[in-house]
Amino acid sequence: MTFSVQVKVMPLKELLDPQGKAVMGGLGNLGLNAIHDVRIGKNISLQIEAASEEEARQIAEQAAKKLLANPVMEQFEININ
Amino acid sequence: MTFSVQVKVMPLKELLDPQGKAVMGGLGNLGLNAIHDVRIGKNISLQIEAASEEEARQIAEQAAKKLLANPVMEQFEININ
Repeated sequence: MTFSVQVKVMPLKELLDPQGKAVMGGLGNLGLNAIHDVRIGKNISLQIEAASEEEARQIAEQAAKKLLANPVMEQFEININ
Repeated sequence: MTFSVQVKVMPLKELLDPQGKAVMGGLGNLGLNAIHDVRIGKNISLQIEAASEEEARQIAEQAAKKLLANPVMEQFEININ
């Protein structure tokens, strides 16, 4: 069975996000001043062949830990639809 | 009131995603062969000051159309928590 798994990788809350700050400046220049804070991360969509949702989640977790996220700077979250 | 809005920006389904293909190769090298397809996009978290959820959604949509997503190559999706 194929599971569609979303891995959301975001910069840790404690860290500055210079890319987000730059985008926030750009939004301000466009007149969108109601936006206070911007943080930018990755969204990775995986198609995983697995026997169960639990197995698919484990495979996604391994992928996130080994390659997709850098634990020094990023946290990740896994969602299965 | 401050709304936490997530904008998910993904490459259009019709287009190749070379970054995703490269990551899929890397996952294969790590022995994670159950993963068939990888697509990589952005996840942008916005803090928006607005009177209502509807207004926050409109502001996020403007931001996505004007700056966050490139409609030639990307589609976006807005979620408010």
